[in-house]
Amino acid sequence: MTQAEIEWSNTEKRVAQDALKKAYEREVESLIRRVRENASKISDLENVWQLHDFLSARRHDIDGKYDGREAFLMFTLSGLVKEGLLQLSELEGLAADKRAKVSLLTRM
Amino acid sequence: MTQAEIEWSNTEKRVAQDALKKAYEREVESLIRRVRENASKISDLENVWQLHDFLSARRHDIDGKYDGREAFLMFTLSGLVKEGLLQLSELEGLAADKRAKVSLLTRM
Repeated sequence: MTQAEIEWSNTEKRVAQDALKKAYEREVESLIRRVRENASKISDLENVWQLHDFLSARRHDIDGKYDGREAFLMFTLSGLVKEGLLQLSELEGLAADKRAKVSLLTRM
Repeated sequence: MTQAEIEWSNTEKRVAQDALKKAYEREVESLIRRVRENASKISDLENVWQLHDFLSARRHDIDGKYDGREAFLMFTLSGLVKEGLLQLSELEGLAADKRAKVSLLTRM
């Protein structure tokens, strides 16, 4: 069964979207904190460009990471769990087989 | 006479390089101040990417701006005066015709 063939109930879709939102908020909060910290420590131009490189990488990463389309949800969720932005326990509204799959994907 | 044919004495080269260094230090100092200010005001992701865009633009600008090769010195110096990073009075060690040219270029 491909990811595209997995069916998501309306409740599950809501659970997944809520989880995505939660992870996104954590990501943004942590990013803002790090930017402020890094910026406060800047003492030369090298540090400025390090901050620029850091932001370029974070922007590229975040742009692709929150794909909420059903065909990608399993990967999106497992990626966020892997990164520590979500806990498996926050996906409790999903059917057991989906949670098992997300959990399996986090170990790959 | 093209820029490449203008002759710079050793003293003039030193004056020009000192001026470049001075402008560069001012630029870096002002950039660091602005990055810190911007970073301290960040409240959402939009602000983070605004800071990223700002740094991308500054990096591109600074990379090309401090060309100390003789053939470009006149343009480099006039550009810095135009931006307020140098004062014409700081080029006093240059021959009068060179200062006149730099001054002319700042009005173009």
